[in-house]
Amino acid sequence: MSEFRFDLRATDGKARLGAVHTSRGVIRTPAFMPVGTAATVKALYTEQVRGTGADILLGNTYHLMLRPGAERVASLGGLHKFMNWDGPILTDSGGFQVMSLAKLRKMSEEGVTFQSHLDGSRHMLSPERSIDIQCLLGSDIQMVLDECTPFPATEKQAAESMQLSQRWAVRSKEAFEAHPRRHEGQALFGIVQGSTYPDLRAESAAGLIETGFHGYAIGGLAVGEGQKEMLRVLDYTAPLLPQDRPRYLMGVGTPDDLVEAVSRGVDMFDCVMPTRSGRHGQAFTRRGKVNLKNARHADDPRPLDESLDCPAARDYSRAYLHHLIKNGEILGMMLLTWNNVAYYQRLMADMRAAIEAGDFAGFYKRFKEEQAEGDISPL
Amino acid sequence: MSEFRFDLRATDGKARLGAVHTSRGVIRTPAFMPVGTAATVKALYTEQVRGTGADILLGNTYHLMLRPGAERVASLGGLHKFMNWDGPILTDSGGFQVMSLAKLRKMSEEGVTFQSHLDGSRHMLSPERSIDIQCLLGSDIQMVLDECTPFPATEKQAAESMQLSQRWAVRSKEAFEAHPRRHEGQALFGIVQGSTYPDLRAESAAGLIETGFHGYAIGGLAVGEGQKEMLRVLDYTAPLLPQDRPRYLMGVGTPDDLVEAVSRGVDMFDCVMPTRSGRHGQAFTRRGKVNLKNARHADDPRPLDESLDCPAARDYSRAYLHHLIKNGEILGMMLLTWNNVAYYQRLMADMRAAIEAGDFAGFYKRFKEEQAEGDISPL
Repeated sequence: MSEFRFDLRATDGKARLGAVHTSRGVIRTPAFMPVGTAATVKALYTEQVRGTGADILLGNTYHLMLRPGAERVASLGGLHKFMNWDGPILTDSGGFQVMSLAKLRKMSEEGVTFQSHLDGSRHMLSPERSIDIQCLLGSDIQMVLDECTPFPATEKQAAESMQLSQRWAVRSKEAFEAHPRRHEGQALFGIVQGSTYPDLRAESAAGLIETGFHGYAIGGLAVGEGQKEMLRVLDYTAPLLPQDRPRYLMGVGTPDDLVEAVSRGVDMFDCVMPTRSGRHGQAFTRRGKVNLKNARHADDPRPLDESLDCPAARDYSRAYLHHLIKNGEILGMMLLTWNNVAYYQRLMADMRAAIEAGDFAGFYKRFKEEQAEGDISPL
Repeated sequence: MSEFRFDLRATDGKARLGAVHTSRGVIRTPAFMPVGTAATVKALYTEQVRGTGADILLGNTYHLMLRPGAERVASLGGLHKFMNWDGPILTDSGGFQVMSLAKLRKMSEEGVTFQSHLDGSRHMLSPERSIDIQCLLGSDIQMVLDECTPFPATEKQAAESMQLSQRWAVRSKEAFEAHPRRHEGQALFGIVQGSTYPDLRAESAAGLIETGFHGYAIGGLAVGEGQKEMLRVLDYTAPLLPQDRPRYLMGVGTPDDLVEAVSRGVDMFDCVMPTRSGRHGQAFTRRGKVNLKNARHADDPRPLDESLDCPAARDYSRAYLHHLIKNGEILGMMLLTWNNVAYYQRLMADMRAAIEAGDFAGFYKRFKEEQAEGDISPL
């Protein structure tokens, strides 16, 4: 079982090229992690996800603890076997979904009790239980339980929330290190909170670094603050983090968000956007987002993007995709999701190549130009 | 462009082994045609359909004439190109769905006018228009417009309905032969009607044979008469049809229906059962039908059927399939549909091998035993 390790291979400005080593394989960074909420990247086979170039998936602790249940997954051999994916998996702590989905939440220093949004059953999540669940699932990269500070928050609210997260981070680390199922190939990431207050972000980062984690996430963003504010937070938060550990911006984002965040030194991302948009008729392309529901595609024989190495982008006309989406056909969701995940992975591959070549600035300029061009001309 | 042709390669009892040659490839018979209603076999990529061993798909004229429209499909290069399937396609005439789905139908000698079930738009289907649509789609095997006689019908009703179908069959053939888009690789099948009346079936078959078709379908079955009555009709109808032409039993059926019909000399089948059942949590296996919604699968690590050469049957536990279906995950529908289409194709392949080996009776006995065994024992 090889030990968890991060190699920073090159930098170009603040952009970083790296490799996260886990016992289940290497994650090339900058990396985008497709979201496999309930043990499935919706509408894709895991072979397809792998084929797009994804090195790692994300699983949601909240969903999996409710269904099918962490103990059940463990008794079936763990999440990887369960969902037929042998690469690394990152799991979140479950805290974010408890706040956004669960009912009758009750917060305390100990943790949070809540009712399932699915069947009303009662559950408890604490730093220790979250780690226990993530170890039962067999996750390769685990996250500390934190409170995702709502936006907007006063400085006092943000400070109190962040300090609770800091105490939970320490407990999470203790639980992780003591867990009988843990092995050296697994990692635990801390999460920097502090809302939009530079001093609080600094206090959070310093505390977490003192505790010591395998990697550091930036949390509490993409919660309504807007891209400009998010990038401002990244501007002053990323430099607070150790050079030799991976940095993960949680729940982000659009292709433009990813490029901007990489240019500020972020290494890892996850977001439901490519998969959720795909199920709703939206395609991401190098020339921006395309709404396949639009009637202008009904007679268009052209594929989505012949330059993308993905059958969904190459082998089907826009007319056909429009037809499928308009008729609510499952194949439409399958194809657009596939295209979107492939597009996101190519974007990451392009960024990695640009950093390696020392041309991230050139990539950045071309990316902005192509996106600004808008979709190909109407027929 | 090679000419349409049927080779009867072997018989075993009444069961027949053959090959239908079209300009887009050979169809090994007995053949099951997965249904691709609206230019997609729901929840499957065409590569997967091909991979299960299917030689031919069925498309529905009614659905395609409404959306995306036959003229549009023609201008986009035809149905094969549109849906990314280069093998043969059989299209029905549209008549059956006009009767079962459309609104405000008005029948006349000329044809039928109706309103779309999708948007209320008005349309007309006549023998000539049906052939025109099928030629615009570019279908390899086309069906005459007929009236699928409702069940039950009095002998008088059945006779009048059958005679209308006979007149429409003659007009369909004339339209087919005169159509500018038609080529020698395409075929037109007549449809024997006559409900459950042997004399009417005989009159229908004789009339169609006199008109002359590339193949003969048996229609008006699987409409509520029950398997016993259906097989009785096959017992006296199949022998009425020419040995040297393919015989197609429309809209049938369960695995047991297929085995019984092949044993009575039927060559081709189509049915939504494997695909529709797959979307509703039902799996077909050699040991019968399995309802994956059932809680008894929740902890079952065994795959559906390791002996089936299909990843969906081999690489995922019943526990995982249960989890996906219970959560309404698209992947659950994708996997069960895949398994079901693969199971149906293996059933046909097994029947072809048995006929070739002169052991259809042995196959028949083993099939009945396995199905009777029921699903594998609970854990």
